[in-house]
Amino acid sequence: MEKNRLEAFSDGVLAIIITIMVLELKVPHGVELEALKPVLPVFLSYVLSFLYIGIYWNNHHHMFQATKHVSGGILWANLHLLFWLSLFPFATAWMGENHLAPIPTAAYGVVLLMAGVAYYVLQQTIIANQGSHSLLASAVGRDWQGKLSPVLYLAAIPLAFVSPWIASGLYTSVALIWLIPDRRIEKALGTHEH
Amino acid sequence: MEKNRLEAFSDGVLAIIITIMVLELKVPHGVELEALKPVLPVFLSYVLSFLYIGIYWNNHHHMFQATKHVSGGILWANLHLLFWLSLFPFATAWMGENHLAPIPTAAYGVVLLMAGVAYYVLQQTIIANQGSHSLLASAVGRDWQGKLSPVLYLAAIPLAFVSPWIASGLYTSVALIWLIPDRRIEKALGTHEH
Amino acid sequence: MEKNRLEAFSDGVLAIIITIMVLELKVPHGVELEALKPVLPVFLSYVLSFLYIGIYWNNHHHMFQATKHVSGGILWANLHLLFWLSLFPFATAWMGENHLAPIPTAAYGVVLLMAGVAYYVLQQTIIANQGSHSLLASAVGRDWQGKLSPVLYLAAIPLAFVSPWIASGLYTSVALIWLIPDRRIEKALGTHEH
Amino acid sequence: MEKNRLEAFSDGVLAIIITIMVLELKVPHGVELEALKPVLPVFLSYVLSFLYIGIYWNNHHHMFQATKHVSGGILWANLHLLFWLSLFPFATAWMGENHLAPIPTAAYGVVLLMAGVAYYVLQQTIIANQGSHSLLASAVGRDWQGKLSPVLYLAAIPLAFVSPWIASGLYTSVALIWLIPDRRIEKALGTHEH
Repeated sequence: MEKNRLEAFSDGVLAIIITIMVLELKVPHGVELEALKPVLPVFLSYVLSFLYIGIYWNNHHHMFQATKHVSGGILWANLHLLFWLSLFPFATAWMGENHLAPIPTAAYGVVLLMAGVAYYVLQQTIIANQGSHSLLASAVGRDWQGKLSPVLYLAAIPLAFVSPWIASGLYTSVALIWLIPDRRIEKALGTHEH
Repeated sequence: MEKNRLEAFSDGVLAIIITIMVLELKVPHGVELEALKPVLPVFLSYVLSFLYIGIYWNNHHHMFQATKHVSGGILWANLHLLFWLSLFPFATAWMGENHLAPIPTAAYGVVLLMAGVAYYVLQQTIIANQGSHSLLASAVGRDWQGKLSPVLYLAAIPLAFVSPWIASGLYTSVALIWLIPDRRIEKALGTHEH
Repeated sequence: MEKNRLEAFSDGVLAIIITIMVLELKVPHGVELEALKPVLPVFLSYVLSFLYIGIYWNNHHHMFQATKHVSGGILWANLHLLFWLSLFPFATAWMGENHLAPIPTAAYGVVLLMAGVAYYVLQQTIIANQGSHSLLASAVGRDWQGKLSPVLYLAAIPLAFVSPWIASGLYTSVALIWLIPDRRIEKALGTHEH
Repeated sequence: MEKNRLEAFSDGVLAIIITIMVLELKVPHGVELEALKPVLPVFLSYVLSFLYIGIYWNNHHHMFQATKHVSGGILWANLHLLFWLSLFPFATAWMGENHLAPIPTAAYGVVLLMAGVAYYVLQQTIIANQGSHSLLASAVGRDWQGKLSPVLYLAAIPLAFVSPWIASGLYTSVALIWLIPDRRIEKALGTHEH
């Protein structure tokens, strides 16, 4: 029961984050297709951030399916993750409205990195709470995506000053890597059920 | 359980979309009835979009009642639908604030069409997941509304350049068609229960 | 289960309405107490609308506790109620920002009245669905609040042109009347449980 | 069941409050690090308020785990708490945008104090409802955090006129005090379970 409320609160926050980002798509004053042009980079940033929040929701969902009990530490590690995710609308709009200028693009990467770190901390908090023989511990054992992502973010942040396009290409690649569903947990859960 | 959380997240996103659209109804500065006049087309666009989001919520609700298991593919097909629905506030405001100018009116139709396509993809993903003998497969077998809607959208989008009134009339007609409750699924569910 | 999702969606919409109204409390630029002065009428309108949405949530909650099955008609009557409630932020801000000018004050009353009508329609739809011997039908039998409210709204709307203070006094009175908890349903439920 | 809906509605409101505060982080127009400078005090205020809303959600969560039945009085005491919490975005933005000017900083303290009072009223309403021998009553018996917080708020509000930095230091201290998890209730619940 306790777990349900943590999930419901997280769902609420993620649902709001994913939706209010669209408020940064300022309605253009013109009525020609031209008028949509300055909106385009904001729109593409929105698509990327929508994808990221979707991935976080998806992984969060899987992780808590493999979680049995919720402790005070888990509650706070979860809020810490939600905090960094809540900065997505700001970081997305700053990058998008400035057509991928170097510093905003690097700042977007910092927010991505911190959210990744917070997710990792949450995962470790749950595993510490449930024991190293738990379902989740074995499922994330060979977590190559989780290990690769911070490396790519750390590479992308300085590269934003060389070429913001390389940086945003790396951000997009990480998102695509995560789109591969987390079959490890699904498999572990499936094996467990049968 | 997994299904519940997908429903809860979708409900959250739909509830926010339907509500933040009202933020585009900018409070007029004047205090006379005249002051409401420029708000009127935005208000009518809001009514239409409210109706559409209501219809999607309603159909989504029915569809998942006829769904038993949720896979990774269904999660992503659902997020894909939510993405297009999240563009409703933007498309509604652009059309409404420009008093049904041709391009914004056509753009609104494109968003309607893409949401319809995403809904269809979600439906097919669920059916593929559950087998062609499933409750949902038989319920949507004679889905004339789902077949008619994209045709009407595709007709309305170019017609927006001839007369935006015809286009918005078609959008309204599609909404009214869908207001007819999805008795097929209700019936199938009813038959199943007894 | 079906009922739960209708409740969850309604809770979501009501939670958003009650919270986004606060976005109309524009942060003043000054740092003196004086700077809060123009915010005061918006704040008082916010308090009144918060109270109304709270009352609607409370009554909605009680009504659906006394509801067993949900039909397509109930879903739409519920969305119709949510539509009128979604206009509260707009009506509240228009009245508040114009310091209770006559037309905005009357418009606020129209929204209150329409929400009241929508609530009545929803109640009757549920009763029609459940039979006149249902729990809800007997609970609302002596619904003096529900009968008095529209009369007071109908009186307040034209009175807004004589004195907006009388009108807003009437709106406040109706809210206070509803603050008396709906003991009828609570009692009926209580009797039923024991 | 009744309790679940109160929790869900509160979760919704808290999730929205915690997220819309981020909308006050106005996207800077510049693309240099300098451009983030005026955002910094708003950001720090956001961090503090995020922490407070997180604490309220956490404590609310624990309190209702120790609550069995929900009465009309509890519903209204809960809405009263949500009302004061809904003023956080306004108070946070006013304080942050004015770089901790005395009156906005004191006003922030008033909102903190009123939310604290409302939480206390809610707690007492639940205890009155459940009897002084209830789980919650014994859990909050030695509530030193709840007793210390209002004293510190009351000290901080006048001190904001001497030095807003002392006041905001006190607000931060209260938040840190509450970060110590409410082990009393957790313990009482734990003892009860075994």
